[in-house]
Amino acid sequence: MITLEIKKLLENKNYIQLKTLLHEMTPVDVAEILENNKTNILILFRMLKKEFAAEVFSYLSSDEQIQIVDAISDKNLQEILDELFFDDMIDFIEEMPSTIVKRVLKNSTNKNRILINQFLSYPKDSAGSLMTTEYLAVKKEWSVKETLSYIRTHGSHSETVETSYVINEKKELIGIVTLKSLLFSKDSDQIINIMDDAISVNTLADREISIELFKKYDFLVLPVVDNENKLLGIITIDDVIDAIEEENTEDFQKMAAMTPSKEEYLDSSVFSLAKNRLLWLLVLMVSATFTGSIISKYEDVLQSMVILAASIPMLMDTGGNAGSQSSTLIIRGMALGEIEIKDYLLVVWKEFRVSLIVGIGLGSLNFLRMVYLIKASIHVSLVVSITLFFTIIAAKLVGGLLPLGAKKLNLDPAIMAGPLVTTVVDALALFIYFYLAKLILHL
Amino acid sequence: MITLEIKKLLENKNYIQLKTLLHEMTPVDVAEILENNKTNILILFRMLKKEFAAEVFSYLSSDEQIQIVDAISDKNLQEILDELFFDDMIDFIEEMPSTIVKRVLKNSTNKNRILINQFLSYPKDSAGSLMTTEYLAVKKEWSVKETLSYIRTHGSHSETVETSYVINEKKELIGIVTLKSLLFSKDSDQIINIMDDAISVNTLADREISIELFKKYDFLVLPVVDNENKLLGIITIDDVIDAIEEENTEDFQKMAAMTPSKEEYLDSSVFSLAKNRLLWLLVLMVSATFTGSIISKYEDVLQSMVILAASIPMLMDTGGNAGSQSSTLIIRGMALGEIEIKDYLLVVWKEFRVSLIVGIGLGSLNFLRMVYLIKASIHVSLVVSITLFFTIIAAKLVGGLLPLGAKKLNLDPAIMAGPLVTTVVDALALFIYFYLAKLILHL
Repeated sequence: MITLEIKKLLENKNYIQLKTLLHEMTPVDVAEILENNKTNILILFRMLKKEFAAEVFSYLSSDEQIQIVDAISDKNLQEILDELFFDDMIDFIEEMPSTIVKRVLKNSTNKNRILINQFLSYPKDSAGSLMTTEYLAVKKEWSVKETLSYIRTHGSHSETVETSYVINEKKELIGIVTLKSLLFSKDSDQIINIMDDAISVNTLADREISIELFKKYDFLVLPVVDNENKLLGIITIDDVIDAIEEENTEDFQKMAAMTPSKEEYLDSSVFSLAKNRLLWLLVLMVSATFTGSIISKYEDVLQSMVILAASIPMLMDTGGNAGSQSSTLIIRGMALGEIEIKDYLLVVWKEFRVSLIVGIGLGSLNFLRMVYLIKASIHVSLVVSITLFFTIIAAKLVGGLLPLGAKKLNLDPAIMAGPLVTTVVDALALFIYFYLAKLILHL
Repeated sequence: MITLEIKKLLENKNYIQLKTLLHEMTPVDVAEILENNKTNILILFRMLKKEFAAEVFSYLSSDEQIQIVDAISDKNLQEILDELFFDDMIDFIEEMPSTIVKRVLKNSTNKNRILINQFLSYPKDSAGSLMTTEYLAVKKEWSVKETLSYIRTHGSHSETVETSYVINEKKELIGIVTLKSLLFSKDSDQIINIMDDAISVNTLADREISIELFKKYDFLVLPVVDNENKLLGIITIDDVIDAIEEENTEDFQKMAAMTPSKEEYLDSSVFSLAKNRLLWLLVLMVSATFTGSIISKYEDVLQSMVILAASIPMLMDTGGNAGSQSSTLIIRGMALGEIEIKDYLLVVWKEFRVSLIVGIGLGSLNFLRMVYLIKASIHVSLVVSITLFFTIIAAKLVGGLLPLGAKKLNLDPAIMAGPLVTTVVDALALFIYFYLAKLILHL
């Protein structure tokens, strides 16, 4: 509807009304409109007022950002950069080709240039790479009244006014004071008497630590300090939500045997997609050839009874699936901090009992199916069903323990998911299978 | 360290110092201490001041909540209930056995009882089930000064003072006003002139819609309205983060072929774990028997050359893994709103090119491995390697399209993940395999 209205106004070159309409919307929605009108993106963008334009710009994807930066003058670029929040500017610079980065640096103040270079040097996935520099710093000697008036005059370009940070002369963080507590205090109260202890995170700490703190304490903002406790920036919750989803995406990718990547699927090149998938496929393919070698070893058993060969896919698949179920629950439980390495005995005991129920259930159903539906002999049906039973037990124990073992070895538990577990369990299933076939069928 | 200090103070019955220590900590940390001192939980809990106790209570897990409620008097229970935020109370009631629910309802005011019953009736995973009732409602005629003084007197028991909600006589939501905009306005400004449009969500809307709004607009709070646009409550971002993680957990579980469950692994009974896993294992097991029937059909081919049987696990596993990779990326992309049904041609074209690269890579490596390492004949090596190539192409197309197809049929794309894709691809792989074996080896 809105899109149609905008198309019409564009066609009729009714720019005045169009401008009014755009400024009545939120920056997110305007960004969406710009992305859906790529041919008119420059006309539309140039209509926006300076501050609003910068906000819209921060919501655009990098292709559109490049298009705009390429078309505007250095002066306009500088205006946008001045209005951008620092974390949005860093996000933008990280995605840009080097020619644009050079233009950005050229159009930054000296102080900003130093800051930008410092931010670009923070390791990926560190707290430093998530933070922004627009926060409110206050002094412990100030009164509530002074502080509120300071927030009123300096807060408009801060990412949040919800929390202010109390620092001393050395810029060390000594406490926090929320707007709520300021409102509920007397004007004459001193900050030192109403401030709370600050929980902070080091610039170099892994972002998972920040995420955990946000979740545990229901924070909206978290201060970031250096090794000397000097306040360098703040992390806001909107960036934490993005980081949470990125962490989850990484886990999904690792669990499906891929090298994790932050690029969106539709934006990724075919080559980089193939690269992310090849390595693990190759590793797993080579492992699966070992499973195959078990089959060659027992060729006599297979040749004497084709029904035994026909049951292999079912045994392998069910074993793999049963193992993936367990490993997924354990990996996810560890990612959410619900399961720790020390719980391994609890996991073994639980998985053992679960696998007894599942194994007996599926084993008996399979036995009935083979005897009554496909009229296999009792003995053959027994071999397949007992193998199924033991495979499920082995699969669930392997699936439960591999992720814990990975963590113990300081590897990422997420790689011990479906694909790897399946390969291990396949081999186990075939060993059990041929052993039982020889034993029960005397082959 | 803290834990040790508390143990010591408990042993020495130094309750005064212990009480001071506990009240210097955050409620989250005190809750953690209580959970780690289950034998002394009641002694510790009784030390806490009313308001603080309620907050600590809201962070305890349900087992500890039951233990405490069982031990305290009706009067104490009522005090805690009075202090709890409404959404925490609902969370608590939902986890309690019916005897405790009855006691809670008995100790609630009439008005609260009606509200509780209303909240318990909201569908699981609806916006209504996420919201709380403690918000600040203001009038459009009020001045900024009046509003700020209203927030000062009424805001202490609101979940957030960051945003206030402008409603009319009919309780309809007509706008929002943030604390920041109040601070940056003149005392005499009227609310109607500084308020923003409200974006709200219906009580019955799926919580995924709320999550999307929070992500898109970087909200900290979202108002919830009924069909007549009457304001019923607000959703705060801390509950949204929990909901995001729950949605992700559900996807992980579905993608590993399990019925999703919200219970933590270590808290789940063996029986419920088994139940969640059995159904899908059974479905997939039956599907895998079809794969097996392909093998029986071609028993003559297999019996004439054992190396062909030995390659089956590798072909099946690699096909399954290649398909899981694609389906995982597509499922995740859809969950994050990056891929839509209409993109199916883009997906097919991308997966096709990726699978060409991956298929040629793995196919040639496998050919070299078979010819040079295991000294298989050129013809047999060709059959296996060409099958591998086509299997990877088929797997990636199936893995890319199944989730999109599921979405089109209004099913959850997450069920079209690894396990199901593997089963489909297994059968395809075997068909291609035996067809090529007959063609090239003239069996």
